[in-house]
Amino acid sequence: MPFVPDFVKGLQCKVCGKLYPKSPVNFCSDDFGPLEVVYDYDAIQPCISREKIEMRPRNMWRYRELLPLDGEPTVGPQVGGTPLIRADRLADALGVEKLWIKNDAVNFPTLSFKDRVVSVALSKAREFGFRTVGCASTGNLANSVAANAAAAGLEAYILVPADLERAKILGTSIYGAKVIAVQGTYDEVNRLCTQVAFKYGWGFVNINLRPFYAEGSKSMGFEIAEDLGWRVPQHVVAPMAGGSLIGKLHKAFHELYRVGLIDKAPTTKMYGAQATGCNPISDCVKSNRDRHKPIRKPNTICKSLAIGDPADGPFSAKLIRETGGWAEDVSDTEIVEAMQLLAQTEGIFAETAGGTTLAVCRKLIEQGRIPRNEEIVICITGNGLKTQDAIFEAVEQPVVIRPTLDDFIPLVDSVPVLS
Amino acid sequence: MPFVPDFVKGLQCKVCGKLYPKSPVNFCSDDFGPLEVVYDYDAIQPCISREKIEMRPRNMWRYRELLPLDGEPTVGPQVGGTPLIRADRLADALGVEKLWIKNDAVNFPTLSFKDRVVSVALSKAREFGFRTVGCASTGNLANSVAANAAAAGLEAYILVPADLERAKILGTSIYGAKVIAVQGTYDEVNRLCTQVAFKYGWGFVNINLRPFYAEGSKSMGFEIAEDLGWRVPQHVVAPMAGGSLIGKLHKAFHELYRVGLIDKAPTTKMYGAQATGCNPISDCVKSNRDRHKPIRKPNTICKSLAIGDPADGPFSAKLIRETGGWAEDVSDTEIVEAMQLLAQTEGIFAETAGGTTLAVCRKLIEQGRIPRNEEIVICITGNGLKTQDAIFEAVEQPVVIRPTLDDFIPLVDSVPVLS
Repeated sequence: MPFVPDFVKGLQCKVCGKLYPKSPVNFCSDDFGPLEVVYDYDAIQPCISREKIEMRPRNMWRYRELLPLDGEPTVGPQVGGTPLIRADRLADALGVEKLWIKNDAVNFPTLSFKDRVVSVALSKAREFGFRTVGCASTGNLANSVAANAAAAGLEAYILVPADLERAKILGTSIYGAKVIAVQGTYDEVNRLCTQVAFKYGWGFVNINLRPFYAEGSKSMGFEIAEDLGWRVPQHVVAPMAGGSLIGKLHKAFHELYRVGLIDKAPTTKMYGAQATGCNPISDCVKSNRDRHKPIRKPNTICKSLAIGDPADGPFSAKLIRETGGWAEDVSDTEIVEAMQLLAQTEGIFAETAGGTTLAVCRKLIEQGRIPRNEEIVICITGNGLKTQDAIFEAVEQPVVIRPTLDDFIPLVDSVPVLS
Repeated sequence: MPFVPDFVKGLQCKVCGKLYPKSPVNFCSDDFGPLEVVYDYDAIQPCISREKIEMRPRNMWRYRELLPLDGEPTVGPQVGGTPLIRADRLADALGVEKLWIKNDAVNFPTLSFKDRVVSVALSKAREFGFRTVGCASTGNLANSVAANAAAAGLEAYILVPADLERAKILGTSIYGAKVIAVQGTYDEVNRLCTQVAFKYGWGFVNINLRPFYAEGSKSMGFEIAEDLGWRVPQHVVAPMAGGSLIGKLHKAFHELYRVGLIDKAPTTKMYGAQATGCNPISDCVKSNRDRHKPIRKPNTICKSLAIGDPADGPFSAKLIRETGGWAEDVSDTEIVEAMQLLAQTEGIFAETAGGTTLAVCRKLIEQGRIPRNEEIVICITGNGLKTQDAIFEAVEQPVVIRPTLDDFIPLVDSVPVLS
């Protein structure tokens, strides 16, 4: 029994526009272009309203008409609804006027925006009848597929680069998933997963389920717009790994306008963030090329963005240019500094990808590319507890004392003493 | 300008009943009994309704009339509203019929229930005019005070036992708090904090601000009752460190009845969970003593519950008996097994305290103390990413392979191959 009328027209090739039926395929058989879910917006418009959405529980499924399930979500029913925080202390530090943080570092259940895409992909996997699922991952996706598959009783195979952070491997194995560490880059892991998905007929969330999976990211954009009072910001800065998120945020804003939920056509400028140690998309934008040059040997502490040959690279570079945005990349040192700045001004402990995004935002402000008096939203996509090793050296170690007041007093500088 | 009328009558000694005005004090000058916030429920009742609460944003402040602030919360405005999950897969594993998990492992901003108490304590600290705040902590409280103080621009001194988990120290220092590692037990740290708070006139959340602080825990109980459809469960299992949470959950249920938000007088049985390596309260309950015997040298992987001489020990033991509940404690091995069981059935990665709570629940079911056909809520209070070391050895390490299908195929047992 469908929980909303079927608004999905099918899957469409992003290169040639050819339409495919809803099925677990991710590329066009003519030109190998990626497929994207297309909706019947004319049918959606009369069925959806701000009031209707606001009456629903605060999670990503309140935007169900714009997500590609046939029935009720059966995986991740409580994902999303993360806070959009007015970040005045960070704004002061950056010298800007109006700044918000969209904080998916506290997304449920596995503390990253990947729970959004996985809940769509695994709910869809069940609709297609898959019993075994999997993914190629740089970490957050691994955590999310493993946790959500466990809760849904699905068997999961998770393939990761062997040099991944210990916390991300532990935070996957704990759920009972089969974790396979592959000696190679993410791109090599991804290629192997494509072979595995085809050989065994499994549902790999970011391979054969990718068109559905990627739609989940739109919910982050829907929430930003709703929390701003049903309007879009002037500037959005988002991290780029495979390059999908930034495009889906943009798609979300335009869909809201298309179905009448926001009043003005969005003119949001989109900015992409990468680490200099793996910057195929930012390099592509900055050097004004049509297509990115793949990075063979990513080398950065920001492992969750270390995809050398991103699937949506060309599309995200094009989108960034078309919106009037830009892309930048930052060093590992800048990433660590930004992680500390975010924690110390806003009390948000983000993973390295969050540090990357904030550091890039700062750079773009300093370059004058993002104006200081306009509205900026920074997307934080994962939690700092997952990438502790990257920051351990940089953070001050505690002073060690005996449990006496005499030991404590010298630690306090020039504090007025009451007693 | 007060955001609700002032419903707080004052602070009352839990031993002799003497009333004190609202101020940063935590014990009775006559008998050193702890003080608790008392409300004018007759005044609250006509000002509150289910509909009014349900219209407000989904965070702990929707129950503002039953929390002790004078004005709007200025710290942690978005804390709470965590999921209550129907845990059918875990219920099957435990052999019970109706089980829910209240999941504060994803509480905002620092992934534990302590964000609830800290947001009240620090908002109150600001109302009292404190500029410097602090706490004695076994970890989660340290994280929360540091993060929330940073976001509020307050200076923070955090004192912790020197043997605390690395993740909990890093997850405190990152926010720029002054972290002091004290060579001693939690009880020694706590005594030193009392001296520090008095000497410098600072606001220590679990010392001189403790009566206000502890009230924040009630919001976990309010949310459980609301999410069950404005009624209370038959059995609640909660972890015990200082022994405050279990009493506040119980107080929350009775307040909801007192002000007319639930229809039937609560008869919930309360169950307390500890680790056998530090079990003063469960030992007190099981041996039927009035007062717990302090544990001098706690020895358990569950550091967040390792308080040897808990402030609310006698009160929680009495409450447990009065409700018809019970207390138990479990070994480190049982804790680790339960952490894995929770992750593998429900996709929730809890810290050691969560493992303790689930393992105790399982034990109480097996003992026949919690009936298998009645409604059970398990309170999960913190995130597994904070206590990775405790579980690292127990979790299966990934298989390492080269990026080829030939290396992958032998890993898959008897799976029907499609191609």
